[in-house]
Amino acid sequence: MLKMAEPIIHHRHPEFTELFTRVNNNLRNLFQTSGDVLTLTSSGTGAMEAVVCNLHQRADTAIFVNGGKFGERWGEILAAYGVHGVEITVEWGSSVSADMVVNALKANPAADAVYLTHSETSTGAATDIETIAKQVHKNSDAAVVVDGITAVGAMELRMDEWEVDAVVTGSQKGLMIPPGLAFLAFSERAWKMAEKSTLPKYYFDLKKAKKAIKENDTPWTPAVSLVIGVDTALEMLRAEGLENVWKRHERLARSIRSAAKALDLRILAQCPSNALTAVTIPSSVDAKLFNKTLKNKYGITVAGGQGHLKGKIFRISHLGYYDELDMTAMVSALELTLRDCGYKFELGSGVEAALSAFSE
Amino acid sequence: MLKMAEPIIHHRHPEFTELFTRVNNNLRNLFQTSGDVLTLTSSGTGAMEAVVCNLHQRADTAIFVNGGKFGERWGEILAAYGVHGVEITVEWGSSVSADMVVNALKANPAADAVYLTHSETSTGAATDIETIAKQVHKNSDAAVVVDGITAVGAMELRMDEWEVDAVVTGSQKGLMIPPGLAFLAFSERAWKMAEKSTLPKYYFDLKKAKKAIKENDTPWTPAVSLVIGVDTALEMLRAEGLENVWKRHERLARSIRSAAKALDLRILAQCPSNALTAVTIPSSVDAKLFNKTLKNKYGITVAGGQGHLKGKIFRISHLGYYDELDMTAMVSALELTLRDCGYKFELGSGVEAALSAFSE
Repeated sequence: MLKMAEPIIHHRHPEFTELFTRVNNNLRNLFQTSGDVLTLTSSGTGAMEAVVCNLHQRADTAIFVNGGKFGERWGEILAAYGVHGVEITVEWGSSVSADMVVNALKANPAADAVYLTHSETSTGAATDIETIAKQVHKNSDAAVVVDGITAVGAMELRMDEWEVDAVVTGSQKGLMIPPGLAFLAFSERAWKMAEKSTLPKYYFDLKKAKKAIKENDTPWTPAVSLVIGVDTALEMLRAEGLENVWKRHERLARSIRSAAKALDLRILAQCPSNALTAVTIPSSVDAKLFNKTLKNKYGITVAGGQGHLKGKIFRISHLGYYDELDMTAMVSALELTLRDCGYKFELGSGVEAALSAFSE
Repeated sequence: MLKMAEPIIHHRHPEFTELFTRVNNNLRNLFQTSGDVLTLTSSGTGAMEAVVCNLHQRADTAIFVNGGKFGERWGEILAAYGVHGVEITVEWGSSVSADMVVNALKANPAADAVYLTHSETSTGAATDIETIAKQVHKNSDAAVVVDGITAVGAMELRMDEWEVDAVVTGSQKGLMIPPGLAFLAFSERAWKMAEKSTLPKYYFDLKKAKKAIKENDTPWTPAVSLVIGVDTALEMLRAEGLENVWKRHERLARSIRSAAKALDLRILAQCPSNALTAVTIPSSVDAKLFNKTLKNKYGITVAGGQGHLKGKIFRISHLGYYDELDMTAMVSALELTLRDCGYKFELGSGVEAALSAFSE
C-alpha cells in the first residue's frame, strides 16, 4: 500500500517500463505460460468480456458451465455478443466433470470454446481444469477458457502444460492488491481465433494490447499505482515460490475444512476450492445473529450466500495474504460465535482440528 | 496518496457506500449536472467507448471532429462499432466552429450524434462547447458528446446549462489522482438513445451502472483505492470552489502563454486550452538537446509532439495540482534551457511576463 502511495511515475517513463517488464515476467510465471499475460485496467469481469469479444464471431456456439454466479456470468457475456451459449447446468456446490463437458461438445459439434470457472466464488467449488482441458483437446478443437479470478495464485494452474487456452484473473484476489487491474493470457489457439474475430471492440481489443506488450507498454493509460502495487505483490509471490504459495493455500483451506467437520458443519462444495470455503449455517442457528455476532463482537467479516443461498451459507476467505494464525483466529471467532448463537459442540474442537490439519 | 494506502474497504461495506455517495454528489457538481455521473474502472478511452456502444445502433451515422489524436480516436471507436463516422477535419492546432458542425449536420441529416473534444491534448486547442452544443440543438436532435478528459476540472463546463448530452473524463487529469478511473454522464436525450441501443456490451453497459448508482453501488468491483483517492480530490476541489478552480487554471494558462509570447515562442493552438499549452520549438534550437536539458539539468518533464508534430513542439501541463510558483519554476527552467540551447532572448523576460499575467 505504501509503495502505491509514492509519487506516481508516468506510464511511458523508462522507470515504469523497467517495472512493467518485471511484472510481465512474473505474470508469465504465475500463469505458468511462456506467452504474454496482458494487463487490463478493469475488474475481472472486463477481462472475461475481453476473452469473449476477442475469441468469437457473431453466431458462434460456445459451451459454458453454470454452477454458480460466476459461471452464469460467462453465459450472460456470450449472450450479450450474440454467441449461442450452450449451458451445462451444475447444482450449486457441485463441479462439472470432464465427461459432462465432452458429451456437451459431442452434442454441439459447432461449439468452438468451453467456458469454465476454476474456483466458483459463490459456492466454493473447484473445477478440475487439468483433466477437462486435456479431455476437451483429445475430442475437439474447442478452446478451453478459464475464469481464474479467485484461483490464480491460490490453486495449482499450469496454463501451458494443462493446455488451457485463455485464463483471466483480477488484482484483488490471489494478487492481494486493491481491485482495478485484470490479467489475461491466450494460447496460440486462442490468438488464432482472435485473428478471425469480428465482434466489435476497442478498449478490450487484445491485438492492440499484444502489440503494446512487445514494448512492455499498454495501448491505453494503465492504472499506474496498481501496477506498482502488483509488482510488489508478484515479487512477494516469487520470493515465497509459486508452489509454496499453492501449498500454503491448500494447507489453510484444509485446516478450515477440518475445523468445519469437527464442528459438525456442512461444507457446501463437494470438490472444494482452496481459495474459500462455503459452510452451511446450521438450521438451529439464526443466520442474522450469526453474521452480526461474528462481525461486531469478534471483528471477523465473512461473505454471505448469493442468490438462493442467501442466509443459508457463509463463506470464509483464505485467499491471498493469510497464514496459519489467521485461520486459528478465524476458527476461534467462529466457535465463540456459534456458542453465542446457542449451537451445541465441544468448545475448542474446531481449533484443535485446524491445528492438526496444519501438520498433515 | 496516503489516503489510498489505508487498509482497503470492501466495496459493499457501509463505509464505502457513504464515501461513494459523497463522491457521486461531488461529481454532479464537477460536471454541473443534476443527473448521475457514473464511475467506471477503466482509462478515459474505456469511457469514450462506453458512450459510443451505449448511444448507437449499428449503421448509425455520427459526426466527429478530427483536430488531433484524441478527436481521431472518436472516429476509430465509431468505426469499431460499425457506426458511420462523418469526419470534420480540422488542422492540428485549430478548433472547429459551430458553423462547421451545423453544416455537417445539414449535409448528413441522418447523423444522431456529434463527437467533440473539449481540450485536444495533442495540440493544446480548446473547443467552444457551449456555442456548438446550443447551435446543434437549435438545428437538430443530435446528441452532443464531449471528450472532457483533460478539460473537466480545468475549464468551465456546465453540462446541463450548455445542453451537452454526454461528458467523459479520467481520474489522472483535473481530478489529480493516479489513472484507473473514468467518469461519464448522460443527459435525458442520451439515456433515451441508450434505451434503444443494440450494440453489444457488458462491462460498459451503462444501464447496469445507472441501476447500481441508485444504491450508490457499481455493477462490477470498482478500483476501490482510487475511489477513495478521488473522494479526497473532489473534496479539495469543493473546498477551493469549482469556479475558483477554473479561474486558477485560466490564470496559470495565461501566465504560460504570456511567457511564451515574451520569449517570442509560437503557441500552436489558435484557441488555446487552459489545461496545457503546446509551444513550437524555435527552428534555431535542437529539439533533442532542448528536451534533454530541460529534463536532466532542470528536472522538468514536458510532453513532446505526437504524430507529425513529433520534435516540433513541446507541451506544458498546467492541469490539476499546480499553482503560480509551479509556473514561474517552469518558465525559469524553460529560459535556462533555451539559453543553454543558444536561443537569443532577454533572460528573465518570460518570468516577468508570467508574473505580470497573474495579476491581470
